[in-house]
Amino acid sequence: MEKGLFITFEGCDGCGKTTQLELLAKYLQDKGYDVIVTREPGARGLGEKLREILLNYDGEVSSNCESFLFLADRAQHIDTIVKPAIDAGKIVLCDRHIDSTAAYQGYGRGLDLEQINYLNNIATSGLKPDLTLLFDVDIETSMARVGNNKDRMENAGIEFQEKVRHGYLELAKKEPKRIKVFDSGKTIEQLHQEVLGIMAPLL
Amino acid sequence: MEKGLFITFEGCDGCGKTTQLELLAKYLQDKGYDVIVTREPGARGLGEKLREILLNYDGEVSSNCESFLFLADRAQHIDTIVKPAIDAGKIVLCDRHIDSTAAYQGYGRGLDLEQINYLNNIATSGLKPDLTLLFDVDIETSMARVGNNKDRMENAGIEFQEKVRHGYLELAKKEPKRIKVFDSGKTIEQLHQEVLGIMAPLL
Repeated sequence: MEKGLFITFEGCDGCGKTTQLELLAKYLQDKGYDVIVTREPGARGLGEKLREILLNYDGEVSSNCESFLFLADRAQHIDTIVKPAIDAGKIVLCDRHIDSTAAYQGYGRGLDLEQINYLNNIATSGLKPDLTLLFDVDIETSMARVGNNKDRMENAGIEFQEKVRHGYLELAKKEPKRIKVFDSGKTIEQLHQEVLGIMAPLL
Repeated sequence: MEKGLFITFEGCDGCGKTTQLELLAKYLQDKGYDVIVTREPGARGLGEKLREILLNYDGEVSSNCESFLFLADRAQHIDTIVKPAIDAGKIVLCDRHIDSTAAYQGYGRGLDLEQINYLNNIATSGLKPDLTLLFDVDIETSMARVGNNKDRMENAGIEFQEKVRHGYLELAKKEPKRIKVFDSGKTIEQLHQEVLGIMAPLL
C-alpha cells in the first residue's frame, strides 16, 4: 500500500473490541503488513503525561478543561503518531477515537453533538478513519464481561450505558459506509472472520 | 459590589500593561476592594502543570495540541479562579486573556478568527470581560523596553509584531464599549490616571 489505513475500534466496555483489534493486528502482521496498535486517550509520550494529569491531579479539574485536555491528546496522537504512520503506508489500528466522544459525551452526557463534531474535526485536522468497526453488545452481556470494572459501570448507570449504545448505533446509521456494526453476541472466532471479510477489499 | 468585575489587560510585550495592572491593584486594595491578580496562561495549580508541560516536554508538541492545551488552561482558569471570584464580588485583574489569542494567533499567525472566537467562547463558557484595557505601543518603543527579551521579539519578526499591534486595534474597533485603548507613549502616572478615569463609573 502506498498510503496506509486508519481503522478504529468502537463500542461499549466489554464489547470485545480490544480482543478483535489484537486478533486483526496479529493476522495482518503474519501477512507481512506493518501494523501500529494504538489507543485513545493517552497513547504514549505527551498523551501519557496528560492522562497522568487527568488521573492524578488532586485539585478540581473543570469539565470544560477536561474536554480540551482530551482534544489536546487527540490532536497530538493524530499529528505525531497516526498521520506519520499512514503516510508511511502502515496500518493503524486504534482502540477508541472520535466516535467514543460522540457516543459518551454527546449521546451519553447530552453535550451538543454539533460542537463535538466541530472540535473533533479541528483535533484531527479533518482526518477520518477509513473504516470503523463498531461492536454492539447488550448492556447485560457487557456488564457480565467487564468483571471487576462492573461497579464503575453500574455507577455510571444502566440508563447511561443504554444511551451510549443507542448513540453508537445512530452514528453507524449516519455513516454506514465508514462504520460497520458487528453483533458481539457471536463467538470471538465468528467475529474475527466477519472482520476479515470487511477488511479484505481494503488490503 | 454584589457581583464582581472582570478586567483584562492586553497589549504587545513592553506596552506597560503589567505595571498598570499592579498600580490599579494597589489603588483598589487601598480603597478596600477585594482584588485578585491573575494571568494567562498558567495562572496556578493545574495551569502551572500545563505550562510546565508546554515548556519542558522534550518531544514534539503539535501546534494543534498546543492550542488545545492553552484552551484547557483558559477553561480551568475561568471555572476555578475567575468565576468563583466574580461570584463572590471580587475584582479580578487578569494579565492577558481572549484578546491575546485573537491578536497573536489570529492576526499574527493568520489562524481563522471565527474558529478562535468559537473556541474561546467554549473555554470561557461565554463569560466576557467587563472591561479590557489595551495598551497600544509602537514596536520600536516596545522592543526598547523589553530589554533582555529583545532577541525573542526580533526572532518573531517586526512584521509579526506589527500584525499583532494592528490586530489589537482592530479588536478594539469591533468592541469599542468593552475595549479601551491607551497610548503607551504617555508616562506611567498619566496612564494610571486615565485608567482610574475609565474605572470610576464601574466602582
